[in-house]
Amino acid sequence: MTSQLLKEIRICFVGESFVNGTGDPECLGWAGRICQDAFLKGFDITYYNLGVRRETSTELRKRWLQEVSYRLTQECDGRVVFSFGANDTTIENGKTRISLQDSITNLRDILSIAKDLYPVLVVSPPPIEDKQQNQRMDDLSKEFAKVCNELNVPYLNIFPELIRSDTWMDEVKKYDGAHPRAAGYQAFADIVQNWEGWLNWLKLD
Amino acid sequence: MTSQLLKEIRICFVGESFVNGTGDPECLGWAGRICQDAFLKGFDITYYNLGVRRETSTELRKRWLQEVSYRLTQECDGRVVFSFGANDTTIENGKTRISLQDSITNLRDILSIAKDLYPVLVVSPPPIEDKQQNQRMDDLSKEFAKVCNELNVPYLNIFPELIRSDTWMDEVKKYDGAHPRAAGYQAFADIVQNWEGWLNWLKLD
Repeated sequence: MTSQLLKEIRICFVGESFVNGTGDPECLGWAGRICQDAFLKGFDITYYNLGVRRETSTELRKRWLQEVSYRLTQECDGRVVFSFGANDTTIENGKTRISLQDSITNLRDILSIAKDLYPVLVVSPPPIEDKQQNQRMDDLSKEFAKVCNELNVPYLNIFPELIRSDTWMDEVKKYDGAHPRAAGYQAFADIVQNWEGWLNWLKLD
Repeated sequence: MTSQLLKEIRICFVGESFVNGTGDPECLGWAGRICQDAFLKGFDITYYNLGVRRETSTELRKRWLQEVSYRLTQECDGRVVFSFGANDTTIENGKTRISLQDSITNLRDILSIAKDLYPVLVVSPPPIEDKQQNQRMDDLSKEFAKVCNELNVPYLNIFPELIRSDTWMDEVKKYDGAHPRAAGYQAFADIVQNWEGWLNWLKLD
C-alpha cells in the first residue's frame, strides 16, 4: 500500500471566497493547487477547503474552531492555513463591514487559540480591482503581519506581489472585479508554494 | 463581466472520505470533477466540499445543516448533494459502527429537512476492497434507494457499476483498500455526470 510510504498530513484551509477558489473553472483555487504540488513532492494530503464566500473575520472567528476540530482529530497530523480579511474592508452603509481594529482583534483571537492546537500559517488577502479597497487591504495586510510576528506565526503578505502580477490583475478585471480564473489562482499558488512557511511543512524527515 | 452571462449555482457536497476525495493526488475527487465539467457546460459553480473522513451518518446528521445553511444563504441558488454510508458499515468491536436501521433513520431525517430547503440529490457509497463490507454496503444502498423513492429525492446507486469497474477496483486495492486515485475518481465522476438527476440541474433555461 503506497500510502504507508508517504507522509500523511491533513490541512484545513480557512477563509473567504479566495480560499474557496471562487471563479476557478478547474475547481482548485490556490489551496487545491498547492496541495496538488505537495502530492507531487511525495506527501499524502487530506485537503479540507473551508473557504466561505462573503464571510468577515468576525463571522470566521465564531465558526472556525468547530469546523476545524471536527476534521482534525487528535490521532492525525492536522494543520491549518488561514487567509482572510478582504471582506472586512468592503464598504457597506458608508463604512467598512469590519473596522480595522476589529479585524486585528479577530486575527489575534483566532491565532491565540489555533497556535496552541495545530501548526498554523497565515496568508494575507490578495488585491482586487477597486483601488480604494486595495489601499484598505494593504493597510490590513501590514497590520496582520505585526500580529503574526508577535504571536510567532508564519505570515505571507501576498498582496504586494500579486498587485504587480498581470496574470492576477487581468483575470480579476475580466471576471467579476474580485476573483481571477485558473491562471490567476495558479499565480497565487506559485507564490505560496515557494514560501518558506509552506516549504517548512513539506520536509520528509 | 462574463460571470453575469453564466448561470450561477452554489453546491454543497456532504459526506465522508469519498466526497472529500481522499487519495486523489489531483485534489478534486468525484465532486470537484463533476463541477469542472459543469463549468465546461457554461455554469459558474461555487463548489463547497464538505466531505469528512471517518464520519458516520449519525455524526453527519448532527452537523450537516449548520455547515450547509452557513454557506447557502437565501439570496443564492444553493443545492446539496449527499453521499454517505460506507463508514456506517465498518465493523468495530464486533458490530457495525451504525446499524442498518439507524443508517436508514438518519438518511430519512436528513432528507426530510434538506428537501424543504434546497434541491437535493443522493449518491450511494462506492465499493471498497473488503468483500463482506461490500455486501453490507450493497444492502445499505438498496435500502437508501427506498427512502429516496419515498421522499421523491433523486438517487444514484453507483455501487453496482463501480464494483464492475476495473479502474475503480484496481486503484482501491493498490492504494489503501478503500480509496482510489485520480482515474478511479474520474470513473465515479463519469457516472454521476451522465446521471439524469445531475443533468437536470444543468439545464440552461
